[in-house]
Amino acid sequence: MNSIEYDQAAPEVRAVFDDIKATRKVDDVNNYWKYQANEPRMLKHVWESLKAIMGPGHLDPLTKELVYVAISITNNCEYCIASHSASARAKGASDEMLNELYAVVGLANMTNRLANAYKVPVDEAFKTK
Amino acid sequence: MNSIEYDQAAPEVRAVFDDIKATRKVDDVNNYWKYQANEPRMLKHVWESLKAIMGPGHLDPLTKELVYVAISITNNCEYCIASHSASARAKGASDEMLNELYAVVGLANMTNRLANAYKVPVDEAFKTK
Amino acid sequence: MNSIEYDQAAPEVRAVFDDIKATRKVDDVNNYWKYQANEPRMLKHVWESLKAIMGPGHLDPLTKELVYVAISITNNCEYCIASHSASARAKGASDEMLNELYAVVGLANMTNRLANAYKVPVDEAFKTK
Amino acid sequence: MNSIEYDQAAPEVRAVFDDIKATRKVDDVNNYWKYQANEPRMLKHVWESLKAIMGPGHLDPLTKELVYVAISITNNCEYCIASHSASARAKGASDEMLNELYAVVGLANMTNRLANAYKVPVDEAFKTK
Amino acid sequence: MNSIEYDQAAPEVRAVFDDIKATRKVDDVNNYWKYQANEPRMLKHVWESLKAIMGPGHLDPLTKELVYVAISITNNCEYCIASHSASARAKGASDEMLNELYAVVGLANMTNRLANAYKVPVDEAFKTK
Amino acid sequence: MNSIEYDQAAPEVRAVFDDIKATRKVDDVNNYWKYQANEPRMLKHVWESLKAIMGPGHLDPLTKELVYVAISITNNCEYCIASHSASARAKGASDEMLNELYAVVGLANMTNRLANAYKVPVDEAFKTK
Repeated sequence: MNSIEYDQAAPEVRAVFDDIKATRKVDDVNNYWKYQANEPRMLKHVWESLKAIMGPGHLDPLTKELVYVAISITNNCEYCIASHSASARAKGASDEMLNELYAVVGLANMTNRLANAYKVPVDEAFKTK
Repeated sequence: MNSIEYDQAAPEVRAVFDDIKATRKVDDVNNYWKYQANEPRMLKHVWESLKAIMGPGHLDPLTKELVYVAISITNNCEYCIASHSASARAKGASDEMLNELYAVVGLANMTNRLANAYKVPVDEAFKTK
Repeated sequence: MNSIEYDQAAPEVRAVFDDIKATRKVDDVNNYWKYQANEPRMLKHVWESLKAIMGPGHLDPLTKELVYVAISITNNCEYCIASHSASARAKGASDEMLNELYAVVGLANMTNRLANAYKVPVDEAFKTK
Repeated sequence: MNSIEYDQAAPEVRAVFDDIKATRKVDDVNNYWKYQANEPRMLKHVWESLKAIMGPGHLDPLTKELVYVAISITNNCEYCIASHSASARAKGASDEMLNELYAVVGLANMTNRLANAYKVPVDEAFKTK
Repeated sequence: MNSIEYDQAAPEVRAVFDDIKATRKVDDVNNYWKYQANEPRMLKHVWESLKAIMGPGHLDPLTKELVYVAISITNNCEYCIASHSASARAKGASDEMLNELYAVVGLANMTNRLANAYKVPVDEAFKTK
Repeated sequence: MNSIEYDQAAPEVRAVFDDIKATRKVDDVNNYWKYQANEPRMLKHVWESLKAIMGPGHLDPLTKELVYVAISITNNCEYCIASHSASARAKGASDEMLNELYAVVGLANMTNRLANAYKVPVDEAFKTK
């Protein structure tokens, strides 16, 4: 599939592109949106859900970008690591913070397997909720 | 493998158990450590690295627990979801925060695959670092 | 490892290459087979099982290629996405169909994690089979 | 988190539950929706996107359920395997079809790793699109 | 799907069951084969490939069982961890060996993500083969 | 992040680099360590645990390198496949051994999913340990 630029885009795609640009105060949308525009229903759906969840809420926006980076590393999505690292930096993430994040990602991927290997039973104290 | 209780434990295992209990101010260690004690070298290594990374640092401890939960959900490690959710709640995570976290986890796992499906090229603007 | 061309191939590798070319009515085999030829036992095994399962059966061949693409995206195998997308297109998949497939892949990867996060118990109605 | 029944639900949750019941012609929603209701924004988002994508479109609904099952097996989501297998059966999937699907899932997960192990370069013929 | 016992099995399934029992010198086949028998083509294919690869070859059989356990832990397949751990023990694996194996599994899953996080370029010295 | 060369490195990083070079009898450390040096705590932790586990122990060092390669293929970590394949070759792995290893990796990833698809119950005989 090719990317779809604003000039070639159907009206329902342009509407999403316009909303992304207005919400994020940018001149153009990232490559992801230009490719996702090949499926206008998902373009609208992905954008609206990210807009609803990734902005201010119960967790601060930087925390959510860091979580996004952590999952993207775990799943090995190069594009997503690059784009959400950039968002995290724009929201205040320093090199020190990202280095510590990578450490947590490594440790979690390690202990996830160790817990499975040993078939560790869940402690009673963890079952309240 | 069976879990190893303090009474049965070798001195180098007891030393780690004692440090966990002192550091976390708890009376007993969680099941994970009792199973990991079957491999005393890794017991020491996992504990020392978690102690170094998961405490105060460049990211606050709650953020790191939330990242841990997010990766554990992605990897489907039931024990790790339970134990790190409990740690997150102990550090202040509310139901609202966890629900929003789950939303981010779902969205990241979705867009990771969409970016791969479309082979989206990394934007020039993301390549500075 | 290097790829193995027909001229260099041992007789048991040539036999598989010949069967692939005859079955698929092509002049040469794809790169995958030329690399898999480094392990002639697996070459024979993978080819025979794909030949048995991916042709006409209880599911139509296009459906099976789409499933293959969906899993390859989930596992992030670039070669497999490319080769099975080409097969899917050769069997009639349009851009619209692939775009909708990508949407399903994204959604399934999202709800897989949300179901795990909430530890949703399986409904009684789903347990009949 | 606990499941949320219709009687306890906030108006925006009830609205989604009502739409699911009307669209699917069922008396009650599945457990997934009752747990997802803990995050009403994602409840609405997941439902609206599944409603848009999983119904009639460029791929037939049964094909999409089979893809969903295939990904859920790959990711080892027990709930999703159960619920989408039930949906696939309701849309006409037979035991023979599901058995053949499982075979494709196994083969794809195998060749995904073999292609990565051999670092197979993408054939020129696969690069047109 | 239900498991298929020898008495109910079709002739081509019985032939595979007989070969498994003769090869492994056992009175009955494991549950995996009784379920895989629902798809007789894959039953034959999986058995013949495991028979060809997992026996004596270029790697010793115990090493191959340990690799199987390591991957099954990484993918979180409870059945496969149990069955291949039993095979490994039958071929000589001690508790000490399995504990060390789990350590390697944990470490590999950790450094896989750290290498991806840092986008470490492959050293020239590793590119000879 | 950029790689960190010995000349630019802080004393605690140099100490780890020196120990790697002395232990492995090499003139320079691999790229992985130069990037991991951005997080000196994890540099020390990863090195010390690999040093403890990957050397002589209950499993021979070649077996452990092969397990590392197998997991790295499963997780699709290109750097780790390259570096641990090189280590495996340095410890005696032949082309034939690696080809057979790849076969085991493919088969395990296949049967992991087939066992999950059929929800195969663990045999009583596997439950002793």
